[in-house]
Amino acid sequence: MARLITPRADDAARWYTDVVTQAKLADYSPVKGCMVIRPRGYALWENMQKVLDGMFKATGHENAYFPLFIPKSFLAKEAEHVEGFAKECAIVTHTRLKATGEPGAGAVVPDPDSRLEEELIIRPTSETIIYAMYAKWIQSYRDLPLLYNQWANIVRWEMRTRLFLRTTEFLWQEGHTAHATHAEAEEEALKILGIYKRFSEEWMAVPVLHGKKTPKEKFAGADTTYCIEALMQDGKALQAGTSHDLGQNFAKAFDVKYQTEAGGWEFVWNTSWGVTTRLIGAIIMSHGDDNGPIMPPRLAPLQAVLVPIWKSDADNAKIREAAAAIEKTLLAAGVRFKCDLRENVNPGFKYNEWELAGVPLRLECGPKDVEKGAVMAVRRTTREKESIPVGALATRVPALLEEIQAGMLAAAAARTQAMTRPVDGWSAFTDEIEKGGFLLAHHCGQTPCEVTIQDETKATVRVVTADGPKESGVCVRCGNPSSRRVHFARAY
Amino acid sequence: MARLITPRADDAARWYTDVVTQAKLADYSPVKGCMVIRPRGYALWENMQKVLDGMFKATGHENAYFPLFIPKSFLAKEAEHVEGFAKECAIVTHTRLKATGEPGAGAVVPDPDSRLEEELIIRPTSETIIYAMYAKWIQSYRDLPLLYNQWANIVRWEMRTRLFLRTTEFLWQEGHTAHATHAEAEEEALKILGIYKRFSEEWMAVPVLHGKKTPKEKFAGADTTYCIEALMQDGKALQAGTSHDLGQNFAKAFDVKYQTEAGGWEFVWNTSWGVTTRLIGAIIMSHGDDNGPIMPPRLAPLQAVLVPIWKSDADNAKIREAAAAIEKTLLAAGVRFKCDLRENVNPGFKYNEWELAGVPLRLECGPKDVEKGAVMAVRRTTREKESIPVGALATRVPALLEEIQAGMLAAAAARTQAMTRPVDGWSAFTDEIEKGGFLLAHHCGQTPCEVTIQDETKATVRVVTADGPKESGVCVRCGNPSSRRVHFARAY
Repeated sequence: MARLITPRADDAARWYTDVVTQAKLADYSPVKGCMVIRPRGYALWENMQKVLDGMFKATGHENAYFPLFIPKSFLAKEAEHVEGFAKECAIVTHTRLKATGEPGAGAVVPDPDSRLEEELIIRPTSETIIYAMYAKWIQSYRDLPLLYNQWANIVRWEMRTRLFLRTTEFLWQEGHTAHATHAEAEEEALKILGIYKRFSEEWMAVPVLHGKKTPKEKFAGADTTYCIEALMQDGKALQAGTSHDLGQNFAKAFDVKYQTEAGGWEFVWNTSWGVTTRLIGAIIMSHGDDNGPIMPPRLAPLQAVLVPIWKSDADNAKIREAAAAIEKTLLAAGVRFKCDLRENVNPGFKYNEWELAGVPLRLECGPKDVEKGAVMAVRRTTREKESIPVGALATRVPALLEEIQAGMLAAAAARTQAMTRPVDGWSAFTDEIEKGGFLLAHHCGQTPCEVTIQDETKATVRVVTADGPKESGVCVRCGNPSSRRVHFARAY
Repeated sequence: MARLITPRADDAARWYTDVVTQAKLADYSPVKGCMVIRPRGYALWENMQKVLDGMFKATGHENAYFPLFIPKSFLAKEAEHVEGFAKECAIVTHTRLKATGEPGAGAVVPDPDSRLEEELIIRPTSETIIYAMYAKWIQSYRDLPLLYNQWANIVRWEMRTRLFLRTTEFLWQEGHTAHATHAEAEEEALKILGIYKRFSEEWMAVPVLHGKKTPKEKFAGADTTYCIEALMQDGKALQAGTSHDLGQNFAKAFDVKYQTEAGGWEFVWNTSWGVTTRLIGAIIMSHGDDNGPIMPPRLAPLQAVLVPIWKSDADNAKIREAAAAIEKTLLAAGVRFKCDLRENVNPGFKYNEWELAGVPLRLECGPKDVEKGAVMAVRRTTREKESIPVGALATRVPALLEEIQAGMLAAAAARTQAMTRPVDGWSAFTDEIEKGGFLLAHHCGQTPCEVTIQDETKATVRVVTADGPKESGVCVRCGNPSSRRVHFARAY
């Protein structure tokens, strides 16, 4: 079989694209910068949605749906916000096509008579339209907190795109909450950060750092941006989720006020937070290998697949019988499982295909296994094998899936730790940054200095962790005093 | 309490809008023609999605996600299709905003340098972008059938909008399938029509007619459009779902071919089908009354609510204890249930509020009920009351919810039947159409005659049912021969 996937060691970027397309997770669309999420990728997203949605609902959040369109003037109301998004807006200007009588693409043109009085922006994020509604719905302290989330598509016009990681259109969830006090908003932003961290580590098996963004890296319109940040196998960092303390910035821009119990009027305090389909990219880049992606068992659309080893017709009948029983057992045990009983392709072909799909566990069953009353289980991660008696499948397969899940997290955590090291001095910094990973370096905290570092090395401060030790030193670039080390890296 | 809802008898249109907004199902947004779906409305949609999605998956369909944007030239490829949608397209022409230094809405304008070479249309439906991808993915008969669905937002620029029923942006699912033969495509289109009918009747409690649309009413680009059609309480019809046999129209426009087993090349046969958030409107208009909407129990976000009747502090402690036990029992029985233990509002206020939310069953529990070891159950539909012993709650409440569900369907079916009658002669037709309902009339089947009827009476042929009796007669309008009666109505 021809190699479908460029080895990662040869070209990490090519490897990633090959994995995504060959595993049929996503494909390029004819629309510049937009991807198609194919069923295998979308099934993974659905599982991720289900878990996250459950976590949001368990903490009192409700889903709603707000318009795709944002009037231009709304975006303009929060100065920093419009500045942050102006360069990547899809702008709707007309509402009718008119036939020209020309052939081909020129057959229809925007009808000049349908020019909108005010242009509409496709939401690059929904703070403005949502807080405009909150101004209508919130009157009293009794209406607070308001804890809404929406699952939606988002458009940010990107020049350089990469499947899942950076596309013009992507899918996400965006939470938007309103609170009576700053303390409550802060608590909410941190609660969500905790949910994101838990989801990433416990479900995606992707260990993350958590903390604050620097003022340079924060969300346009936020007072503080909290984030989770992961390190990919190639040593580049990936921002995996953000939770913003918006202060009263949008409340003031959209006049979202509430009457206090004492009868006065106060602006509300807002938070917003989101994770996107880029998390699928994080899973691929954290766990994938030269044979394809590896799905963390807890989220895998298919957790285990059985490949029969056909021999003679007489044996095959027995294998089919055994496979049917195994299927019944495993489905009853809640395992997302299927038997691949195709006869027109050989077992080796099937192994490759299911490895390429990222199925975390393969069960093999040949005549000898049937005789022994067992199946051979092969881990997608380490290729470790073990024979499981049929009677033990209902308990051993779920346990094995959990072991694979734990192994994936441990491997990623060990790798992240190995790729994280303190660096002092500018020359060491510029050498080390080439090797990838997190550099723990002192920084003065000044934006101009941060910009210089980025210009010179493409590295940014990824996160100022909450639990990092205080330690005085001097800024790795400018030599000014610093009270702590921060995590630098090149990032996606 | 001031009347929140205009009585339906006074003004049916006002009644509908009042119900939607006062029940907090949806609200108007500042973007013309776009609604906000509020948590109560969205929770209903989530339940509808869950059921439909399960039905699609059980019949072999997979979910995927395709881009929001459609290049203008794609829409233009299928002549009838572009003609059908040209007048209601949101058109993206620019991708950046530019600061002007002006105050207010003029502070930013589309940057002329960001003008797109080819305009993008926000999907009014996704046939064109999806079949362009199918051309890439389908090579062989082994790739067929391809059975994909997507849950997405859609934009059709509407001049006159109504919450849920007709909005510029709405949510829907759209299935798109490709088959090797016309017979298989036809079978698929009808299978989905059956799913829609079952969903509408068994879950929404909305009885529907099913059959074909006339050529005048079919989808732009389809060979045949199948539909389900329901009658609302006000006597107007509502198209509740459509399933299209697209023939090879899009396959030819987008060159979607497959290699047959014999080695030749053939165009595929496509179907597409969808239902939208307008179904929420159908539920409201089928079952609602002057106190608000009534949620069919099988889809209701909240199926039952307990309102305690507070008396003395001593009693209240007992009631709280009983309520906690009831909650435990009902949640364990799988009932979507909550206790309304607020002390700052009286029971009457709560009754109104939960009626307005459309909760199908109310449980009341006062000191006497506690003494008797029972609760009083009140149906939202008929206000019928029954005392249920606490020990019987786990079985009686689910059964009662099913009775309410069946009662809603039966009432709607009886109403539809009562409002459906044969009509002969043009003068009878024009008189009867004013009274609403379905008129079973002979029609010649010619589009110009159908257009005349619509121009003169606002009535259209809603559906040509598959199971209607053959009966010869003369067209109610033009007198030409007709072989069967069809269902005419005014429609939403």
